[in-house]
Order: sequence, then C-alpha cells, then structure tokens
Amino acid sequence: MSNAEIRVAVLGAGGRMGSEAVEAVKNAPDMELVAAHGRSDTLEEILSAGATHIVDLTVPDSTEANVRFAVEHGIYAVVGTTGWDADRLERLEQLLSEHPESGVLIAPNFALGSVLATAFAAKAAQYFESAEVIELHHPQKVDAPSGTAVRTAELMGAAREAADVAPSPDATETALEGARGAEVAGIHVHSVRLRGLVAHQEVLLGSAGEQLSIRHDSFDRASFMPGVLLGLRTVGSRPGLTHGLDGYLDLGL
Amino acid sequence: MSNAEIRVAVLGAGGRMGSEAVEAVKNAPDMELVAAHGRSDTLEEILSAGATHIVDLTVPDSTEANVRFAVEHGIYAVVGTTGWDADRLERLEQLLSEHPESGVLIAPNFALGSVLATAFAAKAAQYFESAEVIELHHPQKVDAPSGTAVRTAELMGAAREAADVAPSPDATETALEGARGAEVAGIHVHSVRLRGLVAHQEVLLGSAGEQLSIRHDSFDRASFMPGVLLGLRTVGSRPGLTHGLDGYLDLGL
Amino acid sequence: MSNAEIRVAVLGAGGRMGSEAVEAVKNAPDMELVAAHGRSDTLEEILSAGATHIVDLTVPDSTEANVRFAVEHGIYAVVGTTGWDADRLERLEQLLSEHPESGVLIAPNFALGSVLATAFAAKAAQYFESAEVIELHHPQKVDAPSGTAVRTAELMGAAREAADVAPSPDATETALEGARGAEVAGIHVHSVRLRGLVAHQEVLLGSAGEQLSIRHDSFDRASFMPGVLLGLRTVGSRPGLTHGLDGYLDLGL
Amino acid sequence: MSNAEIRVAVLGAGGRMGSEAVEAVKNAPDMELVAAHGRSDTLEEILSAGATHIVDLTVPDSTEANVRFAVEHGIYAVVGTTGWDADRLERLEQLLSEHPESGVLIAPNFALGSVLATAFAAKAAQYFESAEVIELHHPQKVDAPSGTAVRTAELMGAAREAADVAPSPDATETALEGARGAEVAGIHVHSVRLRGLVAHQEVLLGSAGEQLSIRHDSFDRASFMPGVLLGLRTVGSRPGLTHGLDGYLDLGL
Repeated sequence: MSNAEIRVAVLGAGGRMGSEAVEAVKNAPDMELVAAHGRSDTLEEILSAGATHIVDLTVPDSTEANVRFAVEHGIYAVVGTTGWDADRLERLEQLLSEHPESGVLIAPNFALGSVLATAFAAKAAQYFESAEVIELHHPQKVDAPSGTAVRTAELMGAAREAADVAPSPDATETALEGARGAEVAGIHVHSVRLRGLVAHQEVLLGSAGEQLSIRHDSFDRASFMPGVLLGLRTVGSRPGLTHGLDGYLDLGL
Repeated sequence: MSNAEIRVAVLGAGGRMGSEAVEAVKNAPDMELVAAHGRSDTLEEILSAGATHIVDLTVPDSTEANVRFAVEHGIYAVVGTTGWDADRLERLEQLLSEHPESGVLIAPNFALGSVLATAFAAKAAQYFESAEVIELHHPQKVDAPSGTAVRTAELMGAAREAADVAPSPDATETALEGARGAEVAGIHVHSVRLRGLVAHQEVLLGSAGEQLSIRHDSFDRASFMPGVLLGLRTVGSRPGLTHGLDGYLDLGL
Repeated sequence: MSNAEIRVAVLGAGGRMGSEAVEAVKNAPDMELVAAHGRSDTLEEILSAGATHIVDLTVPDSTEANVRFAVEHGIYAVVGTTGWDADRLERLEQLLSEHPESGVLIAPNFALGSVLATAFAAKAAQYFESAEVIELHHPQKVDAPSGTAVRTAELMGAAREAADVAPSPDATETALEGARGAEVAGIHVHSVRLRGLVAHQEVLLGSAGEQLSIRHDSFDRASFMPGVLLGLRTVGSRPGLTHGLDGYLDLGL
Repeated sequence: MSNAEIRVAVLGAGGRMGSEAVEAVKNAPDMELVAAHGRSDTLEEILSAGATHIVDLTVPDSTEANVRFAVEHGIYAVVGTTGWDADRLERLEQLLSEHPESGVLIAPNFALGSVLATAFAAKAAQYFESAEVIELHHPQKVDAPSGTAVRTAELMGAAREAADVAPSPDATETALEGARGAEVAGIHVHSVRLRGLVAHQEVLLGSAGEQLSIRHDSFDRASFMPGVLLGLRTVGSRPGLTHGLDGYLDLGL
C-alpha cells in the first residue's frame, strides 16, 4: 500500500466520465487509484481496496446507495451523478448529521471555468443596467436553453431582484416568430445551435458606455477533471454536505 | 474656384448625418464643399455653386426630386436617404436611360465594414452546415431583429438554397417562452438589447470541427463617412444606377 | 436647502470628467449638486455651499490639498485624480487617524465593469494552466501595454504565485521581431491599437478542454459615472481610507 | 465496380489525416473508396484498384512521385502534403503542360473556414485605417506567429500597399519587453498560447467608429474533410494546377 493519503475508488469507471476520472487519478501525484469500480463490482470491494475517497460517476439509480455506503464507512465522497432531488438531499443531510466527521461534495458541474463564470455573472449582475445570456451548443442538443444557462439566468435575476435593480431596458415593439431561447427570471437567454461547437456560454452585462462579457468555452470532457481532483483534495477537510464546486473555490474577493 | 474635380453639395446639411458629411467633405483633400444645403435652400443654388456631385441625406419626401434634379443637370448623386421603393427606382432607371452619362448611387448603408460583413456572410453561407446570426443593439431600438440582420439572413438563406445546402441541423425538442429574435429564411437570428451598445452584428457559421465568425461593430455615426467619400469618388465613373455600396467595392476575390 | 443627505461639490467641474460628474450628480435623485467648483474658486466656497461630500477630479498638484481640506472639515471625499504616491497616501492615512469618522475613497478607475473584470481575473487566475491578456485601444495611446493591463497581469501573476501555479506552458522556439505587448509577472500581454476602438481588455484563461474569457469594453467616459455615484453613496459609511472601488463592491461570492 | 464517378485512392491512409480522409470518402454518397494506400503499397495498386482520383496525404519525400504517377496515368490528384517548393511546382507545371486534360489541386490548408477567412481579410484590408491579427494556439506549438497568420498578414499587407493605404496609425512611445508576436508586412500579429485551445485566428480591421472582425476557430482535424471532398468533386473539371483551395471556391462577390 502506498503512502498516498488520497486513495480513490472510481465508481462508474466504465462510463465516459468514469474512464476519464480513472486516468486523471492515476496521473495525480498525490493520489492513488485503488479501484476502478464497474457495474458488476460490489461495494465491499471498495473497503477491501482500502479506499479513503470515492468518486461517484454512476447513474441516478445507484448514486444514493453508493454515497450512503461511503458515509457509513468513513469514506469521503465526490459525486458527479445527477438525480439528487430534495428528498435524497434531505436523507443525506440526516445521515451526515449522524456522521459529523464525514464529507460529501455533490457537484452538478465539475468544469472550474463554468463554475467561476456562473459565480462571477451572479455577482456582477446587480451592477449593470442590462443583462443577457447567449449559450451556444452542438446541434444534437435537445433542450433549449441549456440547463446551465437557465441556472445562470436564475442566479443573475435573483441577485438583481435582491439589489432592487430595475428590469433591463427594452423598447422592442415589433418582433418576428421563431426565435430559439427564452426569458428566464427577467434575463433574455439566446440559444445558438451550431455544428462544430461543443458547449459555450457568454454573459453580457451593459451600462452606459461599457460592457462586461464573461464567456466560458467547453471543448472537451477533459475540462471536468481538474474539478474532480480539486474535489478529492478538498472534501476531506470540509465535513458535511457541500452542494456545488463553488463551495470549495476561494471566491472571497 | 478650386481645381478640385469633385465639387460637392451636401443636401440635408442640417441633419445629423448631413453635418457629419459636411465635415468629411471639407476634410477630404480631393474634394471641395461648395454648398451645405438646408431645408430652406433651393435646388438652383446647387447649380450656382458649381456642384459636380450631390450627397442626398434628406428625407423620403424630398429625395426623389433632389436626385431627378441632379440627373437632369448632369450632376452625380450619392444618396443615403431611405424611401426608395420599387416605383421610385423604376422612375429613376427610366430617367437615367435618357441621361446615359449620369451616375447615381443609392446606398442603404454607408458603413464599409457592415457592407463587407454582409457580403462575406452571404458568400460563405453555402460552405457550412450551420448558420446563425446574433445582432446586438442599444435598448432604445424598437424593431427586433434589426433590418440589417434580416437582410443578412435573407441573403445567406438564398445563397444556401441556391447551392442546395440542407437546413442547419437542430435537435431542439423543448423550448421556453419569450426569446427575442426570429427565424428568417431558415437562419436563426438572435436579438440582444444591451445598454452601452450601439449597433453590432455577428454571423456564426459552423461545420464539423470549425467555426467562422464575421462580426461588425458600429460605435459611431463617423463610420459612415468613409463610405460616403468612396461613393463620391466612384460615382463619376459608374454610369447608371448602382444600388448598394457593395457595387463599388472591389470584391472579386 | 434640500433634504438630500448627499450634498455634493464637484471639484474640477470644468474638466471632461468633471463636467460629466456634474450632470450625473444633478440627475441622481438622492443627491444634490451644491457646487460646480472650478480652478478659480476657493475651497471655502465648498463650506458655504453646505457640501457633505466632494468629488475630486482635478489635477495631481491640487488633489492632496483638496482632500486634506475635506477631511479637516468633516466632508467625505471621492477622488479620481491621479498622483497619489506612497508619500501622499501615508500623510493622508495619518490625517485620517486624527479624524476617525472621516471617509475617503481614492479610485484609480471608476468603471464598474473594469473593476469587476480585474477582480474576477485575479480570482480565477490560480485555477487555470494558462493565462494571457489582450488589451485593445485607440491608436493615439502612447503607452503599451496599458496601465490597466499591467496592473491586471500583476494581480494575476501574484495570485498564481501565491497558489503555487506553474508558469503558463509555452513551447515557442522561433519568434519574429516587432510584437507590441510585454510579459508582465509571467503573464503575456498583447497590445492591439486599432482606429475605431476606445479601451477594451480581454483576459484569457485556459486549461485542458476549456477556456474562460473575461472582457471589458469601455466605449465612453459615461461609463465612469455609475462608479462615481456608488462611491458617493458608500463613502459615508466607510470610515478611513479605501483604495480602489472594489473595496466598496459586494464581491464576497 | 460501382457507378460512382469519383473512385478514390487515399495515399498515406495510415496517418492521422489519411485515416480521417478514408472515413470521409467512405461516407460520401457520391464517392467510392477503392484503395487505402499505406507506406508498403505500390503505386501500381492504385491502377489495379481502378482509381480515378488520389488524395495525397503522405510525406514531403514521396508526394512528388505520387503526383507524377497520377498525372501520367490520367488520375486526378488532390494534395495536402507539404514540401512543394518552387522547383517541384515548376516540374509539375511542365508535366501538366504535356497532359493538358489532367488536374491537380495542391492545398496547404483544407479548412474551408480558414481559407475563406484569409480571403475575406485580404479583400477587406484595403478599406480600413487599421489592421491587426491575433492568432491563438495550444501551447505545444513551437513557432510564433503561426504560418497561417504570417501568410494572412502578408496578403493583407500586399493588398494595402497595392491600394496605397497608409500604415496603421500607432502612437506607441513606450514599450516593455517580452511580447509574443511580430510585425509582418506592416501588420501587427499577436500570438496567444493557451492550454485548451487548438488553432484560432482573428483579424481585426478598424476605422473611425467601426470595427470588422473575421475569426476562424479550428477545433478538430475533422474540419479539413469538407475541403478534401470539395477538392475531389472539383478537380476533375479544373485542368492544370490549382494552388490553394480558394481557387475552387465561388468567391466572386
């Protein structure tokens, strides 16, 4: 057994994200990969492998059981799987209150750049007269606007409301049909679908004489790995449940 | 009387565009301003001033009479006034056929960058799988999408149809309400309204693995003056009616 | 005398920034302009006008005396004039320690978007492998890189050093001559000079598979006024010296 | 044997570009792949496979012999291999004069978007006061500026010189050390190296009050395949040597 303090079992190692995570952990000098856990493996194998941390990148049906198992056995958990609704989160909070030394990170988004862009947009939104969002994705995407854009607009809208900012000015009188996008929380969101693109978002903020633009481009799934590693390195010192990677970022400005 | 071959009367000299044109002509080393013609001046004053060229920046009600007067007196005309519908254009063509040495430029847009951007977008549109347009303007604008964006999309759509290009791929199944924009000639147009902006347009073209973006930013009315001067310098060597400044640009690539 | 609690004397009211500030204060519903103070006016007139706040937009030679006068008479000061070197700041800190209820804001930059962009760039710099800055200005600018770009790069470089981030990777072996820009604190800065532009800056941050871009565009001096008003509204509740408008922004994320 | 008129042998099929081309030809409904030709295969096999066209994606040492063989056997050739210096081109022209029905395309760049961007930049350069280029690449790139940026700047500079455009205005007096980029043909080129990026270029053109930006993003080698297929579809109707894919594009505007 090595001296690495972060001994990681990747759950869902056969999936696309999981296999990237296996490689990322292997290449991290301060971590050891102790299990690449697939669909047919049992949770007990995590224990026998001596894991101190798990990364859960499985499916909504199994993620809750995986995380409960980790918490009950004193293993830290970093979770990228979706499906954590209010009920599940409440049960997890309850369990964590019985294991106060345990730590869990549930992160809907591991791309540091995207998490930062959303945080910055929410923070800046109150200081400008106008705010809109343009999200641009590959044309296979079935939902418009993107979930990230909706969440960004909701956070921006809430920040503007809390600071009593007037609605973005808009004199539009005539309009044609067929636009792709939406108005979310008072923020106009534009949805571009273009072959060649992956996942991109630009927040535009304007006041008289100036514009602030915050843009994030995701070119590749590799962009999630620095966030996974940051989660693994931090979860051991943050007891309880953290929801969103931004909770681990040093964003006090 | 100077030796300048281009002796210019600016009609509508009291307006915003007109007063910019007066300054631009004054500062052009190869031109002479011979009349800054206002609402109360008569057309005969253009003759007595010895004008060889007029710039018409008046109002739809007077532009046709002004241009007819110029053509009938052997004066070249550069026209930025709107209101030239099919009937007026037909009457002008008829008049020009009787004055074959005369030249008239009617230019809906004098911003060279905008004219070039539209021409390039129309030319490139057939070579990409996907095509969309984002136009961004100040929030006092009452129409959305902008006229320039609609015209750009129409030209792009026509070019794609002529080249038998399939519609831009789009798997969108769910959509929210309230987007600002339109689908024009099969091209999605997104309309951003943001305090601080003036008039901006970005054409996005995508195929597998690549994107071409053509963006024009108008910051100031000053951007129209190089186009006005180019029109004045060229109209004397282009008999007949030219519609659109692109007709004077050297765009054979 | 009105009931406005913020009664403002603008010093340097005849200058370009000063005259904008005069208008901005006049238009602010919660403020009253009590003096538009020019070169030939005496500081006593500020007292007789009943000012509670001054905005100093004068020249380096007079700003220190103006601010001292304000502090000594219980008047809050918002300062945009340059020339506050270490000696001056030390003398001001000393004076303020004798007037603990007084408040002074010295702000090298009143554009909220620019201040936010710099703060965000400094905060994000530690989370990415690569970081560069592109600044774009009108071609009359004599210094390259711009002062804002140098300061942004210094803050980013310091943040990366504090977090032990490796230098941005760069395999460049061959290079040509004549580039405009610099390497500042390990950050490459590129200086574009283009007719038509005003003042623009884009910070680019990249890691495997993703890019975060933070761009600020200044189109007009009007962009400074929201920052001046924010300073006036806040300085009364922030005793002592605040250096930089970011000190007044709610940037805890 | 199928009825496809375009029967393609891919030379260099084992390389990265070659294997992409093999797939692209297989998927093209109007083509048939008749040979995926590797290092150990003989040129005679191209004949026995009944190829009407070759795509040469080999190495500088073998490309000339491959193309000569094609021309001598009445096979059209689309060539992406580098190494075609003046001597080789002259010998090829001589050979083609003896085979007037043959057609060869030598294309240093198959990305349609990049070819269009360069053509548009060269065309527009004469109409603006200022012109600069920003190229952005992954940090493993050893040369700065990129070859494409140097060629773009040279074409823009030549167009400006031919049209007697004054140098881009630049008042820079002070400068720091260490910029990455160059001045090429009077055009400033800025070289950004950023982890996460692939190959990107933005041409900026400015005049009073306006800016035209032409940007190309290459995300993936897949972007070359539409250009390869366009070459194959066109070479049969263009006898002689065409240098550069732009020769096949319908760029008369």
